[in-house]
Amino acid sequence: MNRVDPLLLGEDLTAQLARLDMGGLGCVELLEQQLAAITASQPILNAYVAIDESAARAAAADSDARRKAGQARALEGVTIAIKDNLDVAGMVSTAGMATRRDAAVAVRDSTAVARLREAGAVIIGKLNMHEAALGADNNNPHFGACHNPHRPGFTPGGSSGGSGAAVAAGLCSAALGTDSMGSVRIPASYCGVVGLKPSWGAISTHGSVALSHRLDHVGPLTRSARDLRRLLPVLAGFDPASAQSRSITMLPTSTGPLRLGIVDFGDAVHCNDDVAAEFVRSLDVLFGLGHRRVDLPAPAFPPGHARRAGLLVCEAELLVEHRHDWQHQRDRFSPMLAKLMSYAEGRSAADLVDASRLLDRAQVQLQQWLAACDVLVTPTTPQRAFAFADAVPANQADLTGYANFSGNPALSVPMAVGEGELPLGLQLVGRVGDELRLIALAEAFQHATRWQPRLPAASHSWGMS
Amino acid sequence: MNRVDPLLLGEDLTAQLARLDMGGLGCVELLEQQLAAITASQPILNAYVAIDESAARAAAADSDARRKAGQARALEGVTIAIKDNLDVAGMVSTAGMATRRDAAVAVRDSTAVARLREAGAVIIGKLNMHEAALGADNNNPHFGACHNPHRPGFTPGGSSGGSGAAVAAGLCSAALGTDSMGSVRIPASYCGVVGLKPSWGAISTHGSVALSHRLDHVGPLTRSARDLRRLLPVLAGFDPASAQSRSITMLPTSTGPLRLGIVDFGDAVHCNDDVAAEFVRSLDVLFGLGHRRVDLPAPAFPPGHARRAGLLVCEAELLVEHRHDWQHQRDRFSPMLAKLMSYAEGRSAADLVDASRLLDRAQVQLQQWLAACDVLVTPTTPQRAFAFADAVPANQADLTGYANFSGNPALSVPMAVGEGELPLGLQLVGRVGDELRLIALAEAFQHATRWQPRLPAASHSWGMS
Repeated sequence: MNRVDPLLLGEDLTAQLARLDMGGLGCVELLEQQLAAITASQPILNAYVAIDESAARAAAADSDARRKAGQARALEGVTIAIKDNLDVAGMVSTAGMATRRDAAVAVRDSTAVARLREAGAVIIGKLNMHEAALGADNNNPHFGACHNPHRPGFTPGGSSGGSGAAVAAGLCSAALGTDSMGSVRIPASYCGVVGLKPSWGAISTHGSVALSHRLDHVGPLTRSARDLRRLLPVLAGFDPASAQSRSITMLPTSTGPLRLGIVDFGDAVHCNDDVAAEFVRSLDVLFGLGHRRVDLPAPAFPPGHARRAGLLVCEAELLVEHRHDWQHQRDRFSPMLAKLMSYAEGRSAADLVDASRLLDRAQVQLQQWLAACDVLVTPTTPQRAFAFADAVPANQADLTGYANFSGNPALSVPMAVGEGELPLGLQLVGRVGDELRLIALAEAFQHATRWQPRLPAASHSWGMS
Repeated sequence: MNRVDPLLLGEDLTAQLARLDMGGLGCVELLEQQLAAITASQPILNAYVAIDESAARAAAADSDARRKAGQARALEGVTIAIKDNLDVAGMVSTAGMATRRDAAVAVRDSTAVARLREAGAVIIGKLNMHEAALGADNNNPHFGACHNPHRPGFTPGGSSGGSGAAVAAGLCSAALGTDSMGSVRIPASYCGVVGLKPSWGAISTHGSVALSHRLDHVGPLTRSARDLRRLLPVLAGFDPASAQSRSITMLPTSTGPLRLGIVDFGDAVHCNDDVAAEFVRSLDVLFGLGHRRVDLPAPAFPPGHARRAGLLVCEAELLVEHRHDWQHQRDRFSPMLAKLMSYAEGRSAADLVDASRLLDRAQVQLQQWLAACDVLVTPTTPQRAFAFADAVPANQADLTGYANFSGNPALSVPMAVGEGELPLGLQLVGRVGDELRLIALAEAFQHATRWQPRLPAASHSWGMS
């Protein structure tokens, strides 16, 4: 095995691809470095729940051969790790649930994974997640907590916590997560990486363990915004095998100044003071780029109401998705998850319609805001990552849920926090199909804030510096 | 009042517009002829439930003035009648329900009506419909049955039966209906007119009495396919006030030969023999235009299963939409509707998720068919209009429901039936955004079958010939 090079591991996917293109780095070499880093980090971070080393090595060797033959595809030889609710052929999709540990291995890749593989990406393994994707701390009772690479003992966020941690710690070139009320963007915020929840239906959810057919989105997590430009065209596309897939026309990137909408949330969302202060500084960066501020009115009702409606929608769908296990091995659901699902069990069809209509109202709220601006800007989360010993804040998804209820694209990009401080994400929300504009804005923001590729300082504790 | 001219009333909207453009006809004159025809036909057809003559006359006079001033808009002075579940400012939206007779008059137009009005259309009145839009015979217990202009005593279809009847009988230039499982296309089929259910979200449903947020579509009924080219651009467009509105990119019309998909429904849908025979003749017309046949496999499960799931979705939403009336004046719901809603009252949130997932499966079925062809072609209905004295066939919506479950555009155009026979529709289903191609194909079909503007022979019985 090669000596691990933290500089290489901290680079974004685009830079790693450039190294592979230049020939100074081999695909197998990149993979081996990442595998070594995984091995070293697992006891502390626990980001992965399964690795298929032999399949990954074979794929990397194949990528080296293709590169040598001048047949490199768009993502030839970079590695992608997959949240464990998305099917990877030959591996079990546990969705972080004890009941699914003994599920049959997936016969086929999920559509998103298949598209990555066809573009030459090496699938490295499956990532830790919050049980059933319904929660945002990734303190998984069955597979163990996944820790934040910036501060072990703290949550990486969830439900795609393993995805956020693995990308931040350089344990893959990029990762896939899923996002039903913020599950890509919350770990991106807490782990200091970029996360994109695309327009609803843009990336097929076919081959996933569903949380909610209405709210689920597959999305990539990366170290830089520019990486998303590589991944999105590969991942997006209509999939007739899925009722949750759409042909989304991606709008062109604009170059002129944008109207950035800033909502006065007032008492509707409690943001920590440190978050509010960082947000103001980040806005100044954006305005410094020439964009205009548009002040938007407070929401007609607190997003917490819609969040609870979204929870009911997810819980009711879990009753159907896991019906057999719920009937026959209910004791293998964690007490917390069982409590949520039991609540939904007592609800009526009309209750579910009520919940869905409240989500509709939240969607209209977002649409009305976006009718007055080009991009809505908020903090991604009302707080930074918290210690596992602390209480889980109820409002983690209050700022992210809107984009799930509405199906609008939303991206989290790291704010420029001080040395030694925990990361924090800035959320950009756009019109349906406006992903490229969000990515371009995030890229410009990362440029202005002088983003540099590097592993978290804490990674020295597992030998990465 | 002018003498009624059946030739004028039978002309399509495009021809009436051309006459107005040429100056040989005035907007008030057109309106007066239609008002006279309505008055004559009401005792027999009962197509309208409310007419605002003074508002319509004022609008028509305004249109004449605009035309005189050279300021004619796209639909200046043609008349549109509106199904009574869509808001028209100053009128009550009864949705065909006794409980809503005393509802407050609408303060604002529904979005679709507002767009028509902005384009210069004269709103003539409100049309009869099946109670609550949940049913397809238009034998309304509160407002009286609406009759088929081709054979009074027979159903015009539903739930937009008044829309089908009014367009067929020349009682407006065109009409709006709504379609949740076939409610625009079924009356179009039975009444011998054209009906379009657009892509989900293309025409805003804002300002309607909802049947189902997932399944509802607003759609125009016209005498010719070419009329839809006038109406669709006016009606379609993203409406941020609605969670059920989408920005749909309309695909360009193609000129080359199309792959027409024909499903072998086998025992999954029972089509009457006369319908099957007419369908074969219509296919020959299409193939004669140079289009190719693609044979598609039988559905994985009978559409009747999805139809029942769609019914539950609608029933549960009605419980929420009419909650107050259901609690306080349940005896004013017809026994049939009360029975349906009572059934839904006993269903759980998980039951509703089950129903929704079955609709998803039907959607995927349609998508898989459309992955192998350009346009799917079926009869619109498995039978012709039936007598009110006969039992209502259960399978009326079996061929139309797919496009609601999936959100794909679908159009019904009259087949070329023999003299004296009841009409029958041919259904064309396309990919999302492919409305213009469906319209062009229907136009070519009408041209090939030598469609001529004329009122039904039976209209002599109310003095129209």
